[in-house]
Amino acid sequence: MKLWDKGYSINNLIETYTVGNDRVLDMKLAKYDVLGNIAHAKMLHKIGILTEKELQDVEKGLQEIQTQIEEGTFIIEDNFEDVHSKIEFELTQKIGEAGKKIHTARSRNDQVLVDLHLYIKDELKEIKELTKNLFDLLLKLSEKHKDILIPGYTHLQVAMPSSFGLWFGAYAESMIDDIIFLNAASKIADQNPLGSAAGYGSSFPIDRQMTTDLLGFSKMHYNVIAAQMSRGKLEKTVAFALASLAGTLSKFAMDVCLYNSQNFGFLSFPKELTTGSSIMPHKQNPDVFELLRGKSNKIQNLPAELIMITNNLPSGYHRDFQLLKESTIEAIETTKENLIVCHFMLENIIIHENTMDNSLYDYVYSVEELNKLVLNGMSFREAYQKLGKQILEGNFNPEKTVKHTHEGSIGNLCLKEIKAKFDEVF
Amino acid sequence: MKLWDKGYSINNLIETYTVGNDRVLDMKLAKYDVLGNIAHAKMLHKIGILTEKELQDVEKGLQEIQTQIEEGTFIIEDNFEDVHSKIEFELTQKIGEAGKKIHTARSRNDQVLVDLHLYIKDELKEIKELTKNLFDLLLKLSEKHKDILIPGYTHLQVAMPSSFGLWFGAYAESMIDDIIFLNAASKIADQNPLGSAAGYGSSFPIDRQMTTDLLGFSKMHYNVIAAQMSRGKLEKTVAFALASLAGTLSKFAMDVCLYNSQNFGFLSFPKELTTGSSIMPHKQNPDVFELLRGKSNKIQNLPAELIMITNNLPSGYHRDFQLLKESTIEAIETTKENLIVCHFMLENIIIHENTMDNSLYDYVYSVEELNKLVLNGMSFREAYQKLGKQILEGNFNPEKTVKHTHEGSIGNLCLKEIKAKFDEVF
Amino acid sequence: MKLWDKGYSINNLIETYTVGNDRVLDMKLAKYDVLGNIAHAKMLHKIGILTEKELQDVEKGLQEIQTQIEEGTFIIEDNFEDVHSKIEFELTQKIGEAGKKIHTARSRNDQVLVDLHLYIKDELKEIKELTKNLFDLLLKLSEKHKDILIPGYTHLQVAMPSSFGLWFGAYAESMIDDIIFLNAASKIADQNPLGSAAGYGSSFPIDRQMTTDLLGFSKMHYNVIAAQMSRGKLEKTVAFALASLAGTLSKFAMDVCLYNSQNFGFLSFPKELTTGSSIMPHKQNPDVFELLRGKSNKIQNLPAELIMITNNLPSGYHRDFQLLKESTIEAIETTKENLIVCHFMLENIIIHENTMDNSLYDYVYSVEELNKLVLNGMSFREAYQKLGKQILEGNFNPEKTVKHTHEGSIGNLCLKEIKAKFDEVF
Amino acid sequence: MKLWDKGYSINNLIETYTVGNDRVLDMKLAKYDVLGNIAHAKMLHKIGILTEKELQDVEKGLQEIQTQIEEGTFIIEDNFEDVHSKIEFELTQKIGEAGKKIHTARSRNDQVLVDLHLYIKDELKEIKELTKNLFDLLLKLSEKHKDILIPGYTHLQVAMPSSFGLWFGAYAESMIDDIIFLNAASKIADQNPLGSAAGYGSSFPIDRQMTTDLLGFSKMHYNVIAAQMSRGKLEKTVAFALASLAGTLSKFAMDVCLYNSQNFGFLSFPKELTTGSSIMPHKQNPDVFELLRGKSNKIQNLPAELIMITNNLPSGYHRDFQLLKESTIEAIETTKENLIVCHFMLENIIIHENTMDNSLYDYVYSVEELNKLVLNGMSFREAYQKLGKQILEGNFNPEKTVKHTHEGSIGNLCLKEIKAKFDEVF
Repeated sequence: MKLWDKGYSINNLIETYTVGNDRVLDMKLAKYDVLGNIAHAKMLHKIGILTEKELQDVEKGLQEIQTQIEEGTFIIEDNFEDVHSKIEFELTQKIGEAGKKIHTARSRNDQVLVDLHLYIKDELKEIKELTKNLFDLLLKLSEKHKDILIPGYTHLQVAMPSSFGLWFGAYAESMIDDIIFLNAASKIADQNPLGSAAGYGSSFPIDRQMTTDLLGFSKMHYNVIAAQMSRGKLEKTVAFALASLAGTLSKFAMDVCLYNSQNFGFLSFPKELTTGSSIMPHKQNPDVFELLRGKSNKIQNLPAELIMITNNLPSGYHRDFQLLKESTIEAIETTKENLIVCHFMLENIIIHENTMDNSLYDYVYSVEELNKLVLNGMSFREAYQKLGKQILEGNFNPEKTVKHTHEGSIGNLCLKEIKAKFDEVF
Repeated sequence: MKLWDKGYSINNLIETYTVGNDRVLDMKLAKYDVLGNIAHAKMLHKIGILTEKELQDVEKGLQEIQTQIEEGTFIIEDNFEDVHSKIEFELTQKIGEAGKKIHTARSRNDQVLVDLHLYIKDELKEIKELTKNLFDLLLKLSEKHKDILIPGYTHLQVAMPSSFGLWFGAYAESMIDDIIFLNAASKIADQNPLGSAAGYGSSFPIDRQMTTDLLGFSKMHYNVIAAQMSRGKLEKTVAFALASLAGTLSKFAMDVCLYNSQNFGFLSFPKELTTGSSIMPHKQNPDVFELLRGKSNKIQNLPAELIMITNNLPSGYHRDFQLLKESTIEAIETTKENLIVCHFMLENIIIHENTMDNSLYDYVYSVEELNKLVLNGMSFREAYQKLGKQILEGNFNPEKTVKHTHEGSIGNLCLKEIKAKFDEVF
Repeated sequence: MKLWDKGYSINNLIETYTVGNDRVLDMKLAKYDVLGNIAHAKMLHKIGILTEKELQDVEKGLQEIQTQIEEGTFIIEDNFEDVHSKIEFELTQKIGEAGKKIHTARSRNDQVLVDLHLYIKDELKEIKELTKNLFDLLLKLSEKHKDILIPGYTHLQVAMPSSFGLWFGAYAESMIDDIIFLNAASKIADQNPLGSAAGYGSSFPIDRQMTTDLLGFSKMHYNVIAAQMSRGKLEKTVAFALASLAGTLSKFAMDVCLYNSQNFGFLSFPKELTTGSSIMPHKQNPDVFELLRGKSNKIQNLPAELIMITNNLPSGYHRDFQLLKESTIEAIETTKENLIVCHFMLENIIIHENTMDNSLYDYVYSVEELNKLVLNGMSFREAYQKLGKQILEGNFNPEKTVKHTHEGSIGNLCLKEIKAKFDEVF
Repeated sequence: MKLWDKGYSINNLIETYTVGNDRVLDMKLAKYDVLGNIAHAKMLHKIGILTEKELQDVEKGLQEIQTQIEEGTFIIEDNFEDVHSKIEFELTQKIGEAGKKIHTARSRNDQVLVDLHLYIKDELKEIKELTKNLFDLLLKLSEKHKDILIPGYTHLQVAMPSSFGLWFGAYAESMIDDIIFLNAASKIADQNPLGSAAGYGSSFPIDRQMTTDLLGFSKMHYNVIAAQMSRGKLEKTVAFALASLAGTLSKFAMDVCLYNSQNFGFLSFPKELTTGSSIMPHKQNPDVFELLRGKSNKIQNLPAELIMITNNLPSGYHRDFQLLKESTIEAIETTKENLIVCHFMLENIIIHENTMDNSLYDYVYSVEELNKLVLNGMSFREAYQKLGKQILEGNFNPEKTVKHTHEGSIGNLCLKEIKAKFDEVF
């Protein structure tokens, strides 16, 4: 059954081409569709479209469907185009004519929109929680390994002393920026589009503030065209936020893969968390972090994909928007997996303690030596010339100690301040 | 003079290749570099690196340079690598040895970083102001033309009644989401990176809270690696926010180009604001909106460009980051121009009043008719079947009136509420 | 069974995360994996690794597996990591120890590589065939409707006379460029990577020319690192070619959606090939072309996605490459569907004949009039001024005839020449 | 003077916004515009629009302009919109009324198109030459350093023996694929669009085959809409080819940066070709390769940028296309610089010879050992188990010799075959 069925059959090729795997994706939206239906029905009752009895029937029917969804027994069969027509059909089967009435003053367009808004609000909340878990673990690892030095690199060249405390803490603090973006996306998602119908509102005297309140939205997307234009724009918004977080995870994964290389050897993982080679018996490859990197990078490309699809389309709904659902839902699912898997791996990370014993890293102390000269009164430029000369002539013998005291430095990680900054935006 | 000059000459080809047009771009950063220098000098004085006299000299010298910058007489000659070395050189020329001391406890890396943060904070503020101007004008146009109906489209098919009030108001409200993203980017930019040096801090007992306060940052980027990682990440953040706004402008421009086509004829512009054809005397082309669309679309691709350059680079500075400056600064400049030009054009837009007289648009009233049947008690599905039959058989004669009353609809634009929503986030 | 199984179990979370849906994707590669196995086995026999008897057993076993694949009874169970381990296991079950020997002088890396090269060669061939079908139909439609005029647009403004002959023919000729790119991709795919092992060759005295010939490759990817680097590069190559074709289809679909709008009304489709609205009974939406546009646009983003994942990775295999398989295979499948569906729709397109009767399009004849003045001796610039004045003053009354005779114009479509140009590159 | 000047002044803001830096970019196209003018004039003479005398004057005038261009004295002043109007104006100044006649049967659209086609053909030829130079140098370096072993990596893990011969040769051979793409782009550029006018041809009896021959195009873009659609499509085509080459250069640059890191230490550059640090006296950073990587990555994003701008635009010229010129020309210029600079740096590369003495790399011989067991009759799987056990128990003591003999391996680089393969497509 299609909502727009006019009595002639649609070519099968076209059917497959147009519906795609919408039915599978719509399972993610099913519970939100029921919530949207209930709020809409209550509002229809208030404005006199549904009688008290009809509303009771509708609510009872929808609750049964919600139970099916929760129990995993709800399915969208091939003869239904999407979750919306399936739920309306089921409801009508259960309660008769009143079931058909809930489509009054509504369009599939704003049904999808409200489902997506509710779904995204929930998912962003979960992603924030998972990010917080990872943030907490990174801070813990920073504290635990704060005294273990490693070289810091610029231009992939050995540069200055760094530490595991600094490194773990950096990714923790960097995630605060990602939370700020996730918050922005959540705020944008937190606007009720229901009532915009096909994007131009309707002549029914609906009460949009009522559904806004019932569905727990903080704001209404007032203008019905603006509400409709949130299709595509909301997905892009989410994509920007996920891409920001994915950028952080990708960079972290690159660091891990590099530091796990024998040429760095700063860290490793238990062999059961690495993978082997079909021809090299000694390999213990960090596949998990390579996939974390690759999957994060794919998410970093999501904004471009969504923009590429929707770009230069004039206002008003176009079927192209349907294609955004798959990539967006997939990116949300992958983001959650990425956060969970990264957390799991870090719980098992093995930190190597004696990296700095390697003479390869002696030069990292050059700036320390330079600064001592400056603190003893030499001008910076002169000290720089002097040290440069020593190094060129092979006479550089540093004292291997590091005493950094300022905020955010090796000796003063400011983990408490970073935690407070996180909590302030979370 | 290069800060890292060691006494041998660099191949000229390489010089050109590596410096690029950094000197031009750095002019945008010059005033912020002076501000950063002053704050840094004050802090160096506090921790005993600069004497009271030296600080006075430094401040006086830098103020003179700031005046040159304001007056447009400051230039970065070809023998200077960047604005940082130029300013340090100028200062030393003016005040002698003390000028050399200000590079103490600092690296070009955190100089660029602090300049970029300050520059971006200011520019985002200006972009928000320009967005507000456009928002205000859109609301004004929405109010002014609220009674002029146009057809609303879905699938580029004539669908339902819309209006200029609805259309202008939609883009106004949609910009609130862009402001939320600009706010997120501003918040992320509002963190002091100064003191991170080359990305690993230093052994000087610097006071980063002091420079944070002096420079007017709300927060500090504590962890020095996190501060360094904001290179690239900050630009991406800005790119996401600009891309969001650009998406709104691009869609609006596409609508204008379409509605200005003879096939729509909803609006036009005074002939002096259109351009002609070299062979078709009758053409008055909407080039400005085509360029607004194209320039906005280029900005929508900025996130992808920045990510493509920085992706998969491990932590620590890489020279690749230098390349981000050009695209970011260009996008900021173009965004401002886009907002100004769009505002200017809309001040001159000509709205055509009688669009709906065209019988082409009769079908937009079909839903109105349908809803009347429903309000009179027919079930939605039955009414839908009945109207569909009338239309197929050519018996559909609608009454051409529209009475929409709900929030955000043609008859109830909620401009005041939209304005309040804007003000709340601005 | 994993090829690299060392006797300890891998965490389940990690297993799911790393294997993904590789098993499903690998079904596309199964038949090519068998072909690669057979060629490799023959070569191993030639160099003395497999005995005559062993080779016979291997060939017989692999033929049985190939039959299963063809009959659809071959499956990759959850306890197999990929198609390679599954086939090796099956073979060993069938023929014993000799089955294990075929992994000699080979790595999964070059197995995947050779499978992908063979798969892509075949798929590009099929895509070229489907493109040819569409090209032929477009030429046929161009010929059929060559006399039906429509307005041509520049800047979305009515500009000059065009025709359906011109419009259909344009997309046909444009596809020749796409074929050139598909050819380039095919040529790049037509290089045998087998023997590169993990990307550094092996100490076995293998005969790579023999497998090159057996597998029907025109060339060998000689250098083993170059062969390995074709992972990622080959997929990008395919992505560029598919994106080129997708760009043509996307633009065509946009034209169709626009021309099908009531505001243009140049063409339509039988109602059973359009879709309806849940609330607007009169709608017959061109969803198929909107999805063709959207799906093509997603493919246009494929190069960016693949580059984003692989960018800045140093040489040598990384697990990230595994993620390219899914997007590439999906894009290939979608491209074929797009071509088939587009062809199907065009077989049913309804061309409206009297578009130019609409006075909206009178101005398209202005250049015709101008040219007549020029052909009668007036300078171009004077004629341009004269016509411009007539139009501004409302005195322009064109003769509505079009006589274009030059190559590629309305009156001289050069379909035979275009066909010849196509055949030359096909 | 604007070609479409109708006597009213255009707002200044709009003028700046629409013209942009077109005058600067057009300097690249000037010489091709003259060539196009000459060919067009000859054809106009043939069909009777220009007299013999007029043609002689036109040719003489245009030759003078061409000389100015070659001598660098040709400039496009601010009162000219573009190179086309400037040249027409200059010509009319020189020869009077006949100068105005050359715009007959032509539009700026096909002037830009023909200029771009000629420009791109030439530039692609030059890029191919520069690529060949780099290819030759890589082969030379491969031959020169063929005996110097380095470890090969998979998953950034030490994997198997590799060599500088293999590494240099790999990038050489990989560039053959890039040449194939450059050839495809050249072939697509080698089609004459002149005569398409504004995209719909004209009523003049022009002879497009004549201008095709005069301008040295192998083919004509027959269909005038197809010719017009090459605007955007041609640039994308070039972008795909440049992106392919850029991908190769970017990966190579990443390898160089990594191998130049102290943690690898496989190679270095003379200190005058590296850059220093403002605070770390010992640094010799590979900025050139970082910029080569970054600039290449920006080019890899060019296809996405061009598609983002043009996507979903219906057929027919739009002003948005103007924006493609800048990015395309910039990418062409940068590609040439990248190739030159890379070549220059490689002429000065310093190869370190004793990398494999480091015990870090002992495990790369594990596969060699395994293969010996297999060649001595053990099954692959058993040998794999045995070696794996030795390594786990720390009993692995490899013989450090490598004897690879197959095509494309360390001991058999096939440089002659690779050279032949290159020559075949060049």
